[in-house]
Amino acid sequence: MPQRALGRLLDLGEKVAGIVGFPIPDLSPKTIVVMAGDHGVVEEGVSAYPAEVTGQMVHGFVSGHAGINVLCRHAGIGVRVVDMGCRADFSDLIAAGAVLDAKVAPGTANMRRQPAMSRGQAALCIERGAAIARGLAVEGVRMLGTGDMGIGNTTPSAAIAAVVTGRTVEECTGRGTGIDDSRLAHKALIIRQSIEARQPNPHDPLDILSKIGGFEIGGIAGFILGAAESRIPVVIDGVTSTAAAVIAWLMEPRLAHFMFAAHRSVEPAQAAMLSLMGLEPILDLGMRLGEGTGCALAMPIIEAGAKVLREMATFAEAGVSQA
Amino acid sequence: MPQRALGRLLDLGEKVAGIVGFPIPDLSPKTIVVMAGDHGVVEEGVSAYPAEVTGQMVHGFVSGHAGINVLCRHAGIGVRVVDMGCRADFSDLIAAGAVLDAKVAPGTANMRRQPAMSRGQAALCIERGAAIARGLAVEGVRMLGTGDMGIGNTTPSAAIAAVVTGRTVEECTGRGTGIDDSRLAHKALIIRQSIEARQPNPHDPLDILSKIGGFEIGGIAGFILGAAESRIPVVIDGVTSTAAAVIAWLMEPRLAHFMFAAHRSVEPAQAAMLSLMGLEPILDLGMRLGEGTGCALAMPIIEAGAKVLREMATFAEAGVSQA
Repeated sequence: MPQRALGRLLDLGEKVAGIVGFPIPDLSPKTIVVMAGDHGVVEEGVSAYPAEVTGQMVHGFVSGHAGINVLCRHAGIGVRVVDMGCRADFSDLIAAGAVLDAKVAPGTANMRRQPAMSRGQAALCIERGAAIARGLAVEGVRMLGTGDMGIGNTTPSAAIAAVVTGRTVEECTGRGTGIDDSRLAHKALIIRQSIEARQPNPHDPLDILSKIGGFEIGGIAGFILGAAESRIPVVIDGVTSTAAAVIAWLMEPRLAHFMFAAHRSVEPAQAAMLSLMGLEPILDLGMRLGEGTGCALAMPIIEAGAKVLREMATFAEAGVSQA
Repeated sequence: MPQRALGRLLDLGEKVAGIVGFPIPDLSPKTIVVMAGDHGVVEEGVSAYPAEVTGQMVHGFVSGHAGINVLCRHAGIGVRVVDMGCRADFSDLIAAGAVLDAKVAPGTANMRRQPAMSRGQAALCIERGAAIARGLAVEGVRMLGTGDMGIGNTTPSAAIAAVVTGRTVEECTGRGTGIDDSRLAHKALIIRQSIEARQPNPHDPLDILSKIGGFEIGGIAGFILGAAESRIPVVIDGVTSTAAAVIAWLMEPRLAHFMFAAHRSVEPAQAAMLSLMGLEPILDLGMRLGEGTGCALAMPIIEAGAKVLREMATFAEAGVSQA
């Protein structure tokens, strides 16, 4: 092959090799874990949808009709659904094994009025998320992806981005599932007031997580740490997963060698956080659904890069005339 | 699903639906056809590799060790190899059914000194390429991709781009498989001299094809026309496939509704031609290998868009509370 003619595809393969070693083993089976949680700040009117949609979407994931289900079936990726802290009760689904119970509490507190959770709850999110990744590693999963579900969670995601990157709240605040201009301005105001009231310490990731939230963000942060400990490549989805990634990365900057950014979200906070961590998104399709949908499209491309590095003949091996 | 939350993925699905209708059928089986040909202009020293590499790579495709083989195995896509006009003789591979014989002649003439082919040969390329696509449609293939192999073929591709888009030769000329600055300047000079000597008529695609070449470019142009006639979505790879696409598009501008641009090549001519046809590339991974490698990565994403449109529940169907 002419040198570097496959561009970033080879970079992806080399990054995988740096995690799993040579010769590169299969990266299947692959699993995306969707972590769900509710956010007290929704009562401030920051979202286009009411909080009960979080629980309804968890039922959607279980029924197999959500976007993440369609895309994971298409790509041969398994899906697991975790309740990190939803208001809804999923006892039946948990008993049936369809939802994993890691509920820290039924929704965070409203960060504008009080810390979203206690420091102990923040540590618990991290611990439970990491345990889930380690468990999947033991099951033999070879590549992991993150997904999120939580009405209102672009609000804490933008707040985390502003605190960690130092950019303004306005630069970090996006339209989430589709709010109009006036609600966008209101959302930015709520985020600014929350940061002023809570004063999260930008150098203390557990302080940021506990003051801003949410439970699924903490769970995903722990999940990423657990994947890296198990030397499993972990693919980061959109803005909420990236906010979780930046929390984990503040704890351990070497995590950047284990993480792949699936896609560029339309949420502006995501680009700011990716650039801080030195990660470049693989896809740019204008997506903003969350759930891990970007991971479902990017994981096969990462796998392709690894296979190219493993299987493709170089010009010398193939007996091709040299330049 | 919140409106347009899957961004361009839904656009891809809708474009597929415009071609194949509702309800969207399966897009598998999928096949990439790699068309190979040699270029007389290689004797002017425009390429980093000698012309015999074209034939060696055809053997590589048959052996299954080339980049396109690895990526197609990964994505469950079939590969067919066609000799549109190589200097090498593939009698054995043709007899074995490993290479399809559509050879128009053993390489084009050097466009700097004479027309690359006759107008009759140009028409023959188109006809044979279209017949191959129609044959695959009859076999039941549901999505097609284009691939090319031809040492030196970024030179005619850049020449076609300059003639058709009106941009300067310097804007359209790239490094192909990796030439240095001085050879890049030489390549641009050869292209400029060829265009001045041949005076291709920018409004007559057969005139452009016959004066500039090459046989694989004509074959791919015909292939795209044949796919569209059969109402099969056809995915366009890098700069050489895009040069073929623009030849076909000049014959029938409605082709743009049937074509998907797999990826943004690092060759500058490609962006100029895509923008003329109003096509936006799906991927941007810095690739420049050709062979159809971009298609192998993009076809599963197009298929994902179609499946989302077909299978995913909307919020209303899923009983999710409205905003």
